[in-house]
Amino acid sequence: MSTPFAPIAIDDPDDPRIAGYRNIREKDLVGRQGLFVAEGEVVLRMLLAQSRHAPLSILIAAKRAESLAPLLARASPETPVFAAGQAVMDQVVGFPIHRGILALARRAPEPTPSELLAGLPGRALALALFGIANHDNMGGLFRNAAAFGVGAVLLDAECCDPLYRKAIRVSVGGALVTPFARFGPNQDPITLLRDHGFEPLALTPRGRTRLIDLKRPPRAALLLGAEGPGLAEALIARASDISIPMSAGFDSLNVAACAAIALHQLAFGSER
Amino acid sequence: MSTPFAPIAIDDPDDPRIAGYRNIREKDLVGRQGLFVAEGEVVLRMLLAQSRHAPLSILIAAKRAESLAPLLARASPETPVFAAGQAVMDQVVGFPIHRGILALARRAPEPTPSELLAGLPGRALALALFGIANHDNMGGLFRNAAAFGVGAVLLDAECCDPLYRKAIRVSVGGALVTPFARFGPNQDPITLLRDHGFEPLALTPRGRTRLIDLKRPPRAALLLGAEGPGLAEALIARASDISIPMSAGFDSLNVAACAAIALHQLAFGSER
Repeated sequence: MSTPFAPIAIDDPDDPRIAGYRNIREKDLVGRQGLFVAEGEVVLRMLLAQSRHAPLSILIAAKRAESLAPLLARASPETPVFAAGQAVMDQVVGFPIHRGILALARRAPEPTPSELLAGLPGRALALALFGIANHDNMGGLFRNAAAFGVGAVLLDAECCDPLYRKAIRVSVGGALVTPFARFGPNQDPITLLRDHGFEPLALTPRGRTRLIDLKRPPRAALLLGAEGPGLAEALIARASDISIPMSAGFDSLNVAACAAIALHQLAFGSER
Repeated sequence: MSTPFAPIAIDDPDDPRIAGYRNIREKDLVGRQGLFVAEGEVVLRMLLAQSRHAPLSILIAAKRAESLAPLLARASPETPVFAAGQAVMDQVVGFPIHRGILALARRAPEPTPSELLAGLPGRALALALFGIANHDNMGGLFRNAAAFGVGAVLLDAECCDPLYRKAIRVSVGGALVTPFARFGPNQDPITLLRDHGFEPLALTPRGRTRLIDLKRPPRAALLLGAEGPGLAEALIARASDISIPMSAGFDSLNVAACAAIALHQLAFGSER
């Protein structure tokens, strides 16, 4: 058996043991056979230490073996660590890759939104996302959710996959540790949230309550839509509507920035 | 003379009239002869309507001429508008460019930090940035600064150029409208801010006052350093130190997200 300190040398880009890393830029890898790829030292540390997902193997650049030894020591002895030269690595993944460490992992079974919300404590934050199709934004949202202790992220059908490689990277691993679930096709988000005692708070430019004036309920769910279209009127009408006032000539904030502001306020601002 | 509605057709990528757009990805274009390139419809609208910088010419994809006519009507009749086919455009800029509109502009003369601060009202927000070398972060910081009415952004020598194309794009034009200045090589930022009545507020993980508990002074300057190294101890020691508490297992926020949270709090939170 190999140990993390004696990585298995790989010389052939077609070696079947590293087939899972092939052409990782192709988005359709995501979800294929329930696997995903994570990259970078900080993200891998979260995957190995705090995540509910199971690493299947690790692929490192041979020149990084020594510097990565402390990190690799955290991996289970059953997780094989492969080491390849830069040229082989580039050929396998399909582009010049600078991050010297990748992992292939199996997705943990995804709970239903109900299961997720039911398992949270009496005082809890949830984030419900609608139409977030951009991986950068998804990553930023999970980074902020993790920083402010969000217990559940709920996604509609239009949201992209938080376990896509780039989303994980931008989240600095937040997507690996913050639990998420997808609304079912016939599930009403507002009813679901209220059934679990979560007050839905819709962030929208025309919201009548300023965020700073909000008295937070113990169980609060922040609803966010994509930049541009925003949240559907039908959702806003059935939620508490809140807004972040902005400069007259420049009313444009990134959706992840909005989440950061609102989650900070919900975590530390006035309470009901 | 051409008018914005009758763009000048360009068929040759080597046409000297569009030489300013050549190979715009090369970073060293920035600052060369005091010019910069801006791209995209939203950004161009800000450049034409709200910016202190002077557009010298506009280059559009010929197929966009009709849809861009309302925007181009805002340009001065003296600003030539060139139109090229996609292949010519790609060849000029040096890569396949999807945004159908670019402008070449002359930078407005940069004020000194003193001039900038002296011109602000009695109640004002400033942002002082240290070591922000990443154009994405710089763009995000300017987007948030513009949204919350920051009157001046001050940059140390390690900060990248806010008028680099990508920074302008990520700022959604915020970098074009929010005034900025560079600290001089022998200028002490803290002394400068205090001389102008601005209280320096250093955001740092070990800050003793929680942001949410801060009573904002009328003239407030938020100090931010790059992710990773953060602010120099010598700066923190001479400023009021504030922090954004985060989850124990995940104390990582993007610098632009930190700015969004802090500027929102300063703009709308408790005052002294």
